[in-house]
Amino acid sequence: MAASTRRPVIIIAGVGNGTGTGGWTAREFIKHGYKVGLIARDEGNLRSLADELKSLGGEAEHFAVSAYDYDQIRVAVEYFKQQFAQDEIRAALWNVTQGTRKPFLEMTRSDIQAVTEADIIAGFAFAQEIIKIFKTLEPNEYGKRGFLAFTSATGARRGAPNCTVTATGKFAVRGLSQSLAKEFKFDDIHVSHAIVDAMILTEMWRKHYGDEWYAEKTKDETSRVHPASIARAYVYLAQQDRSAWTWELDLRPSHESWTW
Amino acid sequence: MAASTRRPVIIIAGVGNGTGTGGWTAREFIKHGYKVGLIARDEGNLRSLADELKSLGGEAEHFAVSAYDYDQIRVAVEYFKQQFAQDEIRAALWNVTQGTRKPFLEMTRSDIQAVTEADIIAGFAFAQEIIKIFKTLEPNEYGKRGFLAFTSATGARRGAPNCTVTATGKFAVRGLSQSLAKEFKFDDIHVSHAIVDAMILTEMWRKHYGDEWYAEKTKDETSRVHPASIARAYVYLAQQDRSAWTWELDLRPSHESWTW
Amino acid sequence: MAASTRRPVIIIAGVGNGTGTGGWTAREFIKHGYKVGLIARDEGNLRSLADELKSLGGEAEHFAVSAYDYDQIRVAVEYFKQQFAQDEIRAALWNVTQGTRKPFLEMTRSDIQAVTEADIIAGFAFAQEIIKIFKTLEPNEYGKRGFLAFTSATGARRGAPNCTVTATGKFAVRGLSQSLAKEFKFDDIHVSHAIVDAMILTEMWRKHYGDEWYAEKTKDETSRVHPASIARAYVYLAQQDRSAWTWELDLRPSHESWTW
Amino acid sequence: MAASTRRPVIIIAGVGNGTGTGGWTAREFIKHGYKVGLIARDEGNLRSLADELKSLGGEAEHFAVSAYDYDQIRVAVEYFKQQFAQDEIRAALWNVTQGTRKPFLEMTRSDIQAVTEADIIAGFAFAQEIIKIFKTLEPNEYGKRGFLAFTSATGARRGAPNCTVTATGKFAVRGLSQSLAKEFKFDDIHVSHAIVDAMILTEMWRKHYGDEWYAEKTKDETSRVHPASIARAYVYLAQQDRSAWTWELDLRPSHESWTW
Repeated sequence: MAASTRRPVIIIAGVGNGTGTGGWTAREFIKHGYKVGLIARDEGNLRSLADELKSLGGEAEHFAVSAYDYDQIRVAVEYFKQQFAQDEIRAALWNVTQGTRKPFLEMTRSDIQAVTEADIIAGFAFAQEIIKIFKTLEPNEYGKRGFLAFTSATGARRGAPNCTVTATGKFAVRGLSQSLAKEFKFDDIHVSHAIVDAMILTEMWRKHYGDEWYAEKTKDETSRVHPASIARAYVYLAQQDRSAWTWELDLRPSHESWTW
Repeated sequence: MAASTRRPVIIIAGVGNGTGTGGWTAREFIKHGYKVGLIARDEGNLRSLADELKSLGGEAEHFAVSAYDYDQIRVAVEYFKQQFAQDEIRAALWNVTQGTRKPFLEMTRSDIQAVTEADIIAGFAFAQEIIKIFKTLEPNEYGKRGFLAFTSATGARRGAPNCTVTATGKFAVRGLSQSLAKEFKFDDIHVSHAIVDAMILTEMWRKHYGDEWYAEKTKDETSRVHPASIARAYVYLAQQDRSAWTWELDLRPSHESWTW
Repeated sequence: MAASTRRPVIIIAGVGNGTGTGGWTAREFIKHGYKVGLIARDEGNLRSLADELKSLGGEAEHFAVSAYDYDQIRVAVEYFKQQFAQDEIRAALWNVTQGTRKPFLEMTRSDIQAVTEADIIAGFAFAQEIIKIFKTLEPNEYGKRGFLAFTSATGARRGAPNCTVTATGKFAVRGLSQSLAKEFKFDDIHVSHAIVDAMILTEMWRKHYGDEWYAEKTKDETSRVHPASIARAYVYLAQQDRSAWTWELDLRPSHESWTW
Repeated sequence: MAASTRRPVIIIAGVGNGTGTGGWTAREFIKHGYKVGLIARDEGNLRSLADELKSLGGEAEHFAVSAYDYDQIRVAVEYFKQQFAQDEIRAALWNVTQGTRKPFLEMTRSDIQAVTEADIIAGFAFAQEIIKIFKTLEPNEYGKRGFLAFTSATGARRGAPNCTVTATGKFAVRGLSQSLAKEFKFDDIHVSHAIVDAMILTEMWRKHYGDEWYAEKTKDETSRVHPASIARAYVYLAQQDRSAWTWELDLRPSHESWTW
């Protein structure tokens, strides 16, 4: 197959049920000509999202993991490497987050391990496998072999009571992403870190708070982050030319009070 | 004149000779349908840039100040308010910077005053006059009455030897911009701060280092920031929808070493 | 006079009525064998504090300025240089702060100028004159020719609505202090920046809120910063040996909620 | 035993061979009347340090772990709880650090796991067990039930090429420590984080670079951090009164260039 027909691919880890940042990043990148590889824990959700993306004219593959961990993430990326062998994996999003809100003294070993296994160790594995792929490619029109983004949250900038393990994981991923940004910029690999400083509107919250609340929030664009907006930030970052790359930006709704 | 024919306007303070961030921001916003109001200290430069912009099909007004100070900035903004009375001033860029590189003990009263007068006090006046205008408008399609950006530099994040007054000014403007972002978000006014962590390629450097050096740098997009790239960041920020606004982002070339 | 009889001196700018950080820093340093030079705007207050310090066995000189500005600060430091010609000016505290809390659009030119004149330009002059003196001395037992501290506040770390000019000034001084710390460490001059993240209990608040409130606050050490505690931080910093110097620390009461 | 005879105890995890921050923190706190509980991986080193401390008139217990992990840290703290049942565990230092310097793509699963197990998960367990103990005590003369410090490094503030896992762990612990500081201040528990921005002089470096280098470095106090200086910072922090607690400070030698 001629090089000219090779399509860019984005691999998205942490798609959930497709209503959050992962799902919307898939939708946005498809609009920009990307194929997508989706990683989540629920096969049914993955299938639904992949079907939706195909109905939009996109091409999507998916891989279900039972947990975000070192081994499964490597297998997943390897799977996409094979599936997209005729294309080019040019972008990747690490959108995985664990965490729990409760008093520190009630947190358990499994609470902190959930964070270290998923956010940190699996994130490390994802970055490694993705960067290895990027290094095999030539720079694209933006001077990038590849673009790797991390979705982060307020907890990456400031700790908070009852959010100890969340902040621990988010600070860690911030440090990881900055180190990668510095180490791989000379290899034409662009790494970014987006700090979402507000609630992201997803189906999870609809289940939690009910349809009425959700409908209200959906209408009021000023007090919640729509995941499509985060996705558009990733498209912008992926398209930044080589003379001006951004590592970090913050994102919050216009009427949300600022938490730091 | 019907509202539908009102065009958005961006006011840019700190245009210099038109080869830097101010000039390129004008060029980029014109592509997006904006009219521009230009402020600089050299009438000739302003006229040249305005002519160029008009030749591109844009509409540009300009106002020369003898110095960036409180009074003249207010007069300049007032001038544009009149000139663009049939349009809407929807965006503004504060791109003024003073500073000098020398040992702290050799710095003089006028060195620090140059920074406080231009970067800080004139920046304060500019923000005030612009925000007053924004408050008279209705939110646009991005949920914004207006968008106000500040061009900043590494010195806003870390001090450095021999750069005392520069860092003093840049830190100050960062604090100003964050305060404004927080105070006016509830009024649908979006304030951003871009940290340019590298040399911006302008004619100033061509004069300083010569044509050959400049030609080389111009070709090597990986080790200098092209001001057009900064300008595109401002376009992106101006177009962020109300569900996800960014206050701060960093910008540096792909192969530039990171200074913080 | 033999070198052995030379006493260390601390110059404190921003003493107010002697009930705040400046006054307490004087009291603490006197306990550690320092003479003090006091700068404030009220001759009466200065005299009272100087008298009190002398009654404690200390030696104090004072200099009243009508405003904290470039010229007067230089004259004041020059005055102390003469007064303490037989001793050694080894420490200095810049404890000056201007600012006002009101909506940004109600702030005036004089509000921002008050901050740039006092916090920034006079602070710049103070640092310059003090560092020139330090450079004439040999390192002391802590490896320091001198120690220069800046009292700062939360506004140096984060902007806030209605506090625009305060944050502008505090950010600026943070940048100034970090630049100085970096530039003069190789000259054995130690520069620190203390971020006080809470209300400092002073007579100013007693007048504002009344005796009863003040008495209550005075008793409750957990929800206000006693200026003596800040002063002890400065003593600690002044005594840090050359193998481990601190530029910045935060200070807040045990039960105060954290603002960043 | 009467309350008046109860002695304060500091538990120090990460003592190494006793020549670094852990060992010197033990020596310093003994001077201030503390008993010490030491945790390290080498029984012989622990015994040597404990013997030395006893010869200085101190009282020391020790506990060897085969690795810094969740289970062993809990057992160790439990051990000291029993050993010091007649005294009061009032302070604790988490001085454990893993990390490796090599290109990211050469880092292995065990490299990142070493950091998450030791720095993060074991640190989490240590903090939990220590805070549980603190909560059983009454506030001391400084208004503290207890003081918990974390030794950190430059990697907590900025990532760096080839230091990915180190920065990941250090950022994580910074987030953990800030969350704890905020959550437990209202329980009169003081948590601090010291960023050591330079090489700490220990025997490890003597072995690495040889006696001559080490002797030179030992003499030149201006270009390395002596661990005793860090220890004195911890004493100062432990003694801060309740009206002014510090979460974070940086420490670097007077002549060391600044890395952020």
